[in-house]
Amino acid sequence: MEPYGYNGKILRVDLSSRVITEEAPPPVFYRRYLGGGALSLYYLLNELRPGVDPLGPENVLIFAASAVTGHPAVGFSRYTVAAKSPITGAFGESEAGGWWSPELKSAGFDAVVIKGKADKPVYLWIKNGKAEIRDASHVWGQMTREAQQAIRKELGDEKIRIALIGPGGERLVKYACILNELKHVHGRAGLGAVMGAKNLKAIAVRGEKKMALHAPEKVREIVKEVADIWKTKPSPLGELGTARTIMLLNAAGILPTRNFTTGVFEKAEAISGETMKDTILVGRGSCHGCPIRCKREVKVDEPYKVDPEYGGPEYETLGALGSLCGVGDLKAIAMANQLCGAYGLDTISTGTTIAFAMECFEKGILTTQDTGGIKLEFGNAEAMVAMVEKIGKREGFGDLLAEGVKIAAEKIGKDAGRYAMHVKGLPLPIHEPRGKVGLALAYATSPTGADHIEHPHDPVFETEAGVKLALPLGILEPLSALDLSSKKVRMFVYLQQLYNVFNSIGVCILSIRFLGGPTSITNIVDYTNAVTGWGTSLWELMKVGERHSAMARIFNLREGLSSKDDDLPERFFEPLDQGPLKGKKIDRQEFQKALGTYYGMMGWDKNGVPFESKLEELELEWAKPLIPKKD
Amino acid sequence: MEPYGYNGKILRVDLSSRVITEEAPPPVFYRRYLGGGALSLYYLLNELRPGVDPLGPENVLIFAASAVTGHPAVGFSRYTVAAKSPITGAFGESEAGGWWSPELKSAGFDAVVIKGKADKPVYLWIKNGKAEIRDASHVWGQMTREAQQAIRKELGDEKIRIALIGPGGERLVKYACILNELKHVHGRAGLGAVMGAKNLKAIAVRGEKKMALHAPEKVREIVKEVADIWKTKPSPLGELGTARTIMLLNAAGILPTRNFTTGVFEKAEAISGETMKDTILVGRGSCHGCPIRCKREVKVDEPYKVDPEYGGPEYETLGALGSLCGVGDLKAIAMANQLCGAYGLDTISTGTTIAFAMECFEKGILTTQDTGGIKLEFGNAEAMVAMVEKIGKREGFGDLLAEGVKIAAEKIGKDAGRYAMHVKGLPLPIHEPRGKVGLALAYATSPTGADHIEHPHDPVFETEAGVKLALPLGILEPLSALDLSSKKVRMFVYLQQLYNVFNSIGVCILSIRFLGGPTSITNIVDYTNAVTGWGTSLWELMKVGERHSAMARIFNLREGLSSKDDDLPERFFEPLDQGPLKGKKIDRQEFQKALGTYYGMMGWDKNGVPFESKLEELELEWAKPLIPKKD
Repeated sequence: MEPYGYNGKILRVDLSSRVITEEAPPPVFYRRYLGGGALSLYYLLNELRPGVDPLGPENVLIFAASAVTGHPAVGFSRYTVAAKSPITGAFGESEAGGWWSPELKSAGFDAVVIKGKADKPVYLWIKNGKAEIRDASHVWGQMTREAQQAIRKELGDEKIRIALIGPGGERLVKYACILNELKHVHGRAGLGAVMGAKNLKAIAVRGEKKMALHAPEKVREIVKEVADIWKTKPSPLGELGTARTIMLLNAAGILPTRNFTTGVFEKAEAISGETMKDTILVGRGSCHGCPIRCKREVKVDEPYKVDPEYGGPEYETLGALGSLCGVGDLKAIAMANQLCGAYGLDTISTGTTIAFAMECFEKGILTTQDTGGIKLEFGNAEAMVAMVEKIGKREGFGDLLAEGVKIAAEKIGKDAGRYAMHVKGLPLPIHEPRGKVGLALAYATSPTGADHIEHPHDPVFETEAGVKLALPLGILEPLSALDLSSKKVRMFVYLQQLYNVFNSIGVCILSIRFLGGPTSITNIVDYTNAVTGWGTSLWELMKVGERHSAMARIFNLREGLSSKDDDLPERFFEPLDQGPLKGKKIDRQEFQKALGTYYGMMGWDKNGVPFESKLEELELEWAKPLIPKKD
Repeated sequence: MEPYGYNGKILRVDLSSRVITEEAPPPVFYRRYLGGGALSLYYLLNELRPGVDPLGPENVLIFAASAVTGHPAVGFSRYTVAAKSPITGAFGESEAGGWWSPELKSAGFDAVVIKGKADKPVYLWIKNGKAEIRDASHVWGQMTREAQQAIRKELGDEKIRIALIGPGGERLVKYACILNELKHVHGRAGLGAVMGAKNLKAIAVRGEKKMALHAPEKVREIVKEVADIWKTKPSPLGELGTARTIMLLNAAGILPTRNFTTGVFEKAEAISGETMKDTILVGRGSCHGCPIRCKREVKVDEPYKVDPEYGGPEYETLGALGSLCGVGDLKAIAMANQLCGAYGLDTISTGTTIAFAMECFEKGILTTQDTGGIKLEFGNAEAMVAMVEKIGKREGFGDLLAEGVKIAAEKIGKDAGRYAMHVKGLPLPIHEPRGKVGLALAYATSPTGADHIEHPHDPVFETEAGVKLALPLGILEPLSALDLSSKKVRMFVYLQQLYNVFNSIGVCILSIRFLGGPTSITNIVDYTNAVTGWGTSLWELMKVGERHSAMARIFNLREGLSSKDDDLPERFFEPLDQGPLKGKKIDRQEFQKALGTYYGMMGWDKNGVPFESKLEELELEWAKPLIPKKD
């Protein structure tokens, strides 16, 4: 065993001074922070001054793979982008798969820490341990596809992997995203706008370095073992992608529809994964090392022109731009998805924001005078597509919606705020807490705001496969999705820590969740040990997960957030109007009790502030002075 | 994987009504409580009414193996006896190795829960799933060896394993012990007196049942792997036993000597493991499945007659009856050790109590008038041996000392209390906190009082082997034995939980600690899974460890103990008088701070009361009402 068996390098880029350096953190650092979210939080807490403008030069933007990224193991292709979020003013992180992070590792780096702001558009070019800042004037303003093509051509290598923004990020749309390979998206938290604000169009990487492995045979063995499982047991994700969820949730009465006013969508089938497969699906995409191929590739010729190069809509996209807007037109959703990809917009936030505007329109709070003539009615597919483009261009009414639901509602005034579905400013993803009540806790406590990937969803608790996932944590029995007792809080706390591990080590939650065997978690430990030689355990990895939560909490406290921000839109405390769960609502008292229990289980006081002893226990002594003193 | 892959049975005996029953707890119970200490605490908290007389019929006495006990794996032979302790009034548990618990398992039971009091002396006879209460009048009053022989003869089977008490337990010496095979001793907490108070002389067991294994091949593989390590790397424990520690601690200036008045003993060599090996050692004993053979077997012909059947003195015994009493006569210690075995007395408490009396004698608080003519001076070997026998018989001055140092000091009056070295009433084991300051925390917080086996000792923190032990917990670097910072508290908390796992699953700490490889902990997980099929992890086992601490804390709170009882004898806040650590003392302020940090890390409030949310997190919802309400 080699307790310090991993050495890595971090690339540091100051865009203001154009100084590029690299650093090699002490090996113990990787064991404590792994990569991804936890690694990013370490840098953000240590190097980002609180209170700065997220879109100013002082924000720190981090792209982080992990100590174990880079080998073709199923589900290990993910990485994190993190910064102070411009849409929440809180900790922002968003993960994506694809091929970018293994390439970064092969180029010699675990992470890139970016500060400052370039005086004109640039992109970063990292190859085999070297990095340079290059002019991007010629691609500034270009759609993502054109920009990607141009950079590849300029550098003369088709194998270059590029993470980049579109015009949405350049124009500081508050929920602009970052894409790699045009299909793998860091959607949430508006990190594309942070990139745009730094005048950074793209980070292109190419690496040919062979990475060291502690136990190559063991790595190969684990990779093969998992790949073999997929041979004998095809994933339900493969055939229908995440889009399979549409029909399941609609049948359960919790497919978020028309801005969460209902959970049953009469046109669900039209936008389902099944319909997609039978109509516009032309291929399936994948990530590095993954045989599941859950990504959709769709093609539409009319009335829209949609190209498979941008992939196809995921579940969240179908919901956000579909049912949430009352839109049952799959081709229109595919078009809107492509526009989001081209402009670099988060499909979830885009959909939730348009759905908000539609409800305001239906309620008469907005009229065609506000929208520039667009009849923003629920179900108006053309209006939805038109609004996406206007948001991407920050044109007309799109300029307002580009601010997200929270600020838009404030600017619209009247009782628009009532229809703004967000937590901490982040527009809601497409999951209904009234039917999966663990999500109420998840949305309220996620440091990034209402997120779909920072925490377990409730259904994992009520299926055999979900429970199997958590078997090594002693979670043995499914709990009802309507349970919000201390048992559910405990399950949530344990799994949230596990998800933090996934998001720090760069593991795809979907590949794990659907693997359907308890080996999946222990495999992560075995795999980590085979790569690093650390001799670590699930216990120690879970401590990284706890560390992640504590650091994120401190980040937000430092930015002025408090337990008051751990809340939900009022709508969820009102009953569902129809379907199998008609009448079901979140009980305010039960919710507040669960929140208090959650704080306690996390080692936080009743105001949600981590106890000093908890920080000491997590080896976060250094973070104690960062907690704001009480007045 | 079989989340509920272990089914076991508990034998219940009511000695008052002579009703014997058995129960099969739900399989999940074993996963949550494993066995040993945690299992015992579950029963004690649920079935023992607080405030009862520990020596009355209402006390509940538990003998507990674990779900994985019973297979010949190195170090897995241990089991726990637990009850409310008559010497502390708090939670009492004490572990021993040997052969008794594998035999109990082969007889079909994981644990025996004993209530009530027999109307006359009895013993319990358990064979192949059946149990009966038998008359013990003929062996009552007998020394342990004679009683063991008589019971074996009566039952006509030499292979019977017997846990029993001697005249000390019958006479309710507050620190009477329970022995099996005359050499394996549940020494601490006075559990032999609890047995005596129930008129229960012995529990004889015989089992021929073959136990089910989830993965027999894997079990054999792990057993072989560990056994092979010992073939290539003989344990330092084998040659000199735990007695090797005498010279090491004396050289470090922390061999407790003359009732902890100093840490250097001028006759250390005379009572060392080395001298024992060269003089009176005639053999080495072992436990079920263990090739290390750390147990001593000694023989003395004159001036005392000592028989190897009672084994030989361990380190703690050499210290307690040797250096602590200023006695440098190895033969006298061997004799006293035999007397303790014969009468069934805890050698540690016996030695610490005699050393206390010696200091009182030297200070003039006691005179020969009090002691019945015995010159109880430090170094008087004959007096020491004589006192052991008087304690065993509760004869003369021995009757007072049979109460332990705390009560004896109260009865003696004057400033005798100043020389009573105990925590919570339990006489100190032979380790000097001023040179291993983690022990200050260990002694103060151990729910059983000052104990040597409920928690890590400090040296484990400053050796490479100690650190390797803890590698899967992310403990990577040794810490100085004089460090009492939050880092040390963290290390202590993590390792205390691990030790709780050892003491619940029935693993020998020595076999693990000296194994010198990180595989030792993960082996426990692999082994547990191979036996049970649970698919558990180190993370889940550590939660059992936390659960143990929380339950023990509640037990003590319920019995009226508070944070005030988490303290040390005043002597340790005064400087050491000589040796390499001359001048070193425990700093009161630093100690109190560490204690507060410890509470916080455990999820307890500043008064040391577990937060309700911590109990909920540990799946101890049922224990919440047991915490006494504040006035």
